Amino acid sequence: MGISSAGPHCSVWRRWAQLRWLTGFHTRTLAPQSVTSAPGVLQQRKAPGMPTSVVSRPWGVRPRGGRALHAAPSSSQEVMLTSERYRVRRLPFSRVSDSDVAFFERVMPGRVITNPEELKPFNVDWLKSVRGCSKLMLKPQTTAEVSQILRYCYERNLAVNPQGGNTGLVGGSVPVFDEIILSTVLMNRIISFDKVSGILVCQAGCVLEKLNEYLEEQGFIMPLDLGAKGSCHIGGNVATNAGGLRLLRYGSLRGTVLGLEVVLGDGSALDCLASLRKDNTGYDLKQLFIGSEGTLGVVTAVSILCPQKPKAVNLAFLGCQSFAKVLETFTTCRTMLGEILSAYEFMDEKCMELVERHLKLSSPVTGSPFYVLIETSGSNSTHDEEKLKNFLEQAMTSGLVSDGTVATDDKKIKALWSLRERITEALTHDGCVYKYDISLPVGKLYDLVTDTRARLGQSAKNVVGYGHLGDGNLHLNITAESYSHSLLDAIEPFVYEWTARYNGSISAEHGLGFKKKQFIQYSKASEAVFLMQRFKAMLDPKGILNPYKTLPSGS
Amino acid sequence: MGISSAGPHCSVWRRWAQLRWLTGFHTRTLAPQSVTSAPGVLQQRKAPGMPTSVVSRPWGVRPRGGRALHAAPSSSQEVMLTSERYRVRRLPFSRVSDSDVAFFERVMPGRVITNPEELKPFNVDWLKSVRGCSKLMLKPQTTAEVSQILRYCYERNLAVNPQGGNTGLVGGSVPVFDEIILSTVLMNRIISFDKVSGILVCQAGCVLEKLNEYLEEQGFIMPLDLGAKGSCHIGGNVATNAGGLRLLRYGSLRGTVLGLEVVLGDGSALDCLASLRKDNTGYDLKQLFIGSEGTLGVVTAVSILCPQKPKAVNLAFLGCQSFAKVLETFTTCRTMLGEILSAYEFMDEKCMELVERHLKLSSPVTGSPFYVLIETSGSNSTHDEEKLKNFLEQAMTSGLVSDGTVATDDKKIKALWSLRERITEALTHDGCVYKYDISLPVGKLYDLVTDTRARLGQSAKNVVGYGHLGDGNLHLNITAESYSHSLLDAIEPFVYEWTARYNGSISAEHGLGFKKKQFIQYSKASEAVFLMQRFKAMLDPKGILNPYKTLPSGS
Repeated sequence: MGISSAGPHCSVWRRWAQLRWLTGFHTRTLAPQSVTSAPGVLQQRKAPGMPTSVVSRPWGVRPRGGRALHAAPSSSQEVMLTSERYRVRRLPFSRVSDSDVAFFERVMPGRVITNPEELKPFNVDWLKSVRGCSKLMLKPQTTAEVSQILRYCYERNLAVNPQGGNTGLVGGSVPVFDEIILSTVLMNRIISFDKVSGILVCQAGCVLEKLNEYLEEQGFIMPLDLGAKGSCHIGGNVATNAGGLRLLRYGSLRGTVLGLEVVLGDGSALDCLASLRKDNTGYDLKQLFIGSEGTLGVVTAVSILCPQKPKAVNLAFLGCQSFAKVLETFTTCRTMLGEILSAYEFMDEKCMELVERHLKLSSPVTGSPFYVLIETSGSNSTHDEEKLKNFLEQAMTSGLVSDGTVATDDKKIKALWSLRERITEALTHDGCVYKYDISLPVGKLYDLVTDTRARLGQSAKNVVGYGHLGDGNLHLNITAESYSHSLLDAIEPFVYEWTARYNGSISAEHGLGFKKKQFIQYSKASEAVFLMQRFKAMLDPKGILNPYKTLPSGS
Repeated sequence: MGISSAGPHCSVWRRWAQLRWLTGFHTRTLAPQSVTSAPGVLQQRKAPGMPTSVVSRPWGVRPRGGRALHAAPSSSQEVMLTSERYRVRRLPFSRVSDSDVAFFERVMPGRVITNPEELKPFNVDWLKSVRGCSKLMLKPQTTAEVSQILRYCYERNLAVNPQGGNTGLVGGSVPVFDEIILSTVLMNRIISFDKVSGILVCQAGCVLEKLNEYLEEQGFIMPLDLGAKGSCHIGGNVATNAGGLRLLRYGSLRGTVLGLEVVLGDGSALDCLASLRKDNTGYDLKQLFIGSEGTLGVVTAVSILCPQKPKAVNLAFLGCQSFAKVLETFTTCRTMLGEILSAYEFMDEKCMELVERHLKLSSPVTGSPFYVLIETSGSNSTHDEEKLKNFLEQAMTSGLVSDGTVATDDKKIKALWSLRERITEALTHDGCVYKYDISLPVGKLYDLVTDTRARLGQSAKNVVGYGHLGDGNLHLNITAESYSHSLLDAIEPFVYEWTARYNGSISAEHGLGFKKKQFIQYSKASEAVFLMQRFKAMLDPKGILNPYKTLPSGS
């Protein structure tokens, strides 16, 4: 441990170290190797008969090991069709004909998929909660090809479902009916990277983790990081305004995305691909497409500002005896760690139980009702460790934290992160999951979990809360043995009403997609929704882009 | 000096200290008192006969002294009317009648200004470069009043010029003809501040500096800072997407503004005033209004994320022998200062000459063709000083920097900052100023100054370059004894064409306003401009909001 060096407060620090076996970390946490061999991991979602080359690698399943080793939930039975479960009416788009397929084959020979088996995984979301029945997937390589596709679809009135890594959690990335899947999987070229400015320009289909690896070689990192990094595409990240683990430090994509190239519903390309940190010439059109979930245009290229790779990273995993202490620990560490604080995540003991039970991970810190994960990233390891040490002493002597461990080396950091990042995966093994991604004033964050737990009683299997506390973002998840309408009715609109009462957001970072679009009014005024609908009508007058998503269906 | 303490490299540090009289700082820099008494300072733009209460305090003239002590350029003669100098044709809006004035008097008694003398300063921009002839100024206090005003104006087809602190540099904040001035001066209420989240909600007319003072008392700061802080309004900052001195550290308003309340051209209020760090429910409408310069709606309230007040601030003012060394110093300090770097500004020797000649400020560092100003802001003064010391040693031993001084106490920091911040003011004393605010790849930044200087030769008095190098933002300024069409023709479109050749932006942070709107095509594709015009037509169908601004007039 790098922080065991003597400092001005070394006596207190030693007390901390003695109390909690910093050196005993190895024996109680799974080594990264055993993490990668845990059940469900490295299990790829390969449909029978599907060629290996088209297997998607959902949620961070990657050859090099490390954190975020999520795998698709296993499912032996076919997922119910979205149109049936949700009783959706198909809009009057044209249906794909043989001559349409022939046209696309001429435009991009060999990159037109019609084989039903090959199409299967791209019709189902990662959670296996919604399923479409698209009969055609196109894999353009260039913006010109995307333009050609959309111009043709616009004229023929064919609906299109843009798809990146298909890692979305609200059913936004798969067709509802037979929309043509427009995949960015082959648009994976890095266009430029400028080491002076830190600005990266790349095609939309670049995988987030690959971009980060490329940047790390140049001494930079991506400004966002999330569990799905191993398969999500940067274009999808932008289209959904992905948040994730680094937002606390580097801010949202609204600040870091400097330019976009977008193809509109009629096939016209909009070039706003500036590589400038500042540009105040007219309205910032690109912002409309960030977070529009493919309903206003297809993002084909991205220009993004990347921070320098931190020279030192530390991770503290701590136990707190109450949520009030979780909050006070946050304000204390924000003050004491200041500019080096890069993540503040929390999870309740239920989350830890599920991760231990379903994924066989073991936590080095036990016996607390709440756990927090504090990451620092900085340019000077000695300074950072001293700041962290001072904070930990303060947190311990004031009783904010009852237990904890610290990691400074990469492998241990990844192992600790997996306890937090694999909660999503552990939940899928617990049964049917009802997922809520809520923004609230931080002081109220956990009350929603407590109230939901009390309300549902025995009808739920587990009610758990975790998330990005530093951003006021709670992931509330409820599990049950199987899907039930009555349980859903007990949860909704209760959760949304509760959130609206405290002026929260019913989708902090996941978006609305298909599954949440009808609830937008809990977070947005009707005038705002009306204006969104006018933007949609203006930019996509035939409504062919990702229909049935984001905005509520007409009353 | 706090950084004189011994450290691991103290011998090199001592050499640095000996070489450049760190302790001699007092004798060579003006004390803050003398800064505030420099010519032109504390001189308020008070029109003859104008009551003191309505004197605006442009560009940071404030009672408490400190940096950013800009004053309005003095002008004995009347500024030429915009409509005459630029030969603009008035659009067919209605003219304000007595019954209109009577209506507004009923809505907001005592807050309707029609006295021509009182109106004078609000018809002229701070640079005294454009002048309108509005006969009516309204001072609403609430959003409901703004709604009433706009609903009435919409029905009557009366044009409206929203105005904050009137500190804009592109003629965006004053009428071109007789538009009604809608001033936010009385909308200066802080609505809420949450110390846990750091989120401030306030009315649009709050003065930036006042907000910062309020926040500092609570241990926070505003995420933006600019020379005009003493008079600019936060609503105007948002409407122009102001950049400034802290952007390098805290990012743009597109990331820090969390919510807006806006009144549209027809008087309808749009409530997007969320106080949440994350909210992905539908399209982010507020972004369209950020940087739209009052042409799409009137910002009435702002929700903004504020960083914690840094515990330690240091400033280094250094001389470099070439622009190549300015660039290398930047990449070196970015690596070595990392997360504590909060500003990297540069200026050429011409700027220093003008500040010394016109404002009688003297620089503690002389004899270099370029100067840089490096600010650090952090949470631990010992750590920050050590990082800065290490960087300065490196910069000096490798010959990047030839000369310099460091300040750690507040008064000296302000005095040093004034050398940079008062360049704008010094320029106005040098004659007629042609101002350009350009984004470029940093490597090309100064070539534009050199090329412009070579092109203009003796026809210009001075050609100077300075700006936010860390953001790739150059302020290119050309002075001449008086305004001349032929000089302007020699500069434009040369500067714009040069900028476009390197994919730069012809307005990095000032906006387009009235003076730059015809040049938008140098930075934006025609499809993008066309789309902007469609947004304008949709949101403000009668075009009554800040007409003649931002978007080019029809061909």
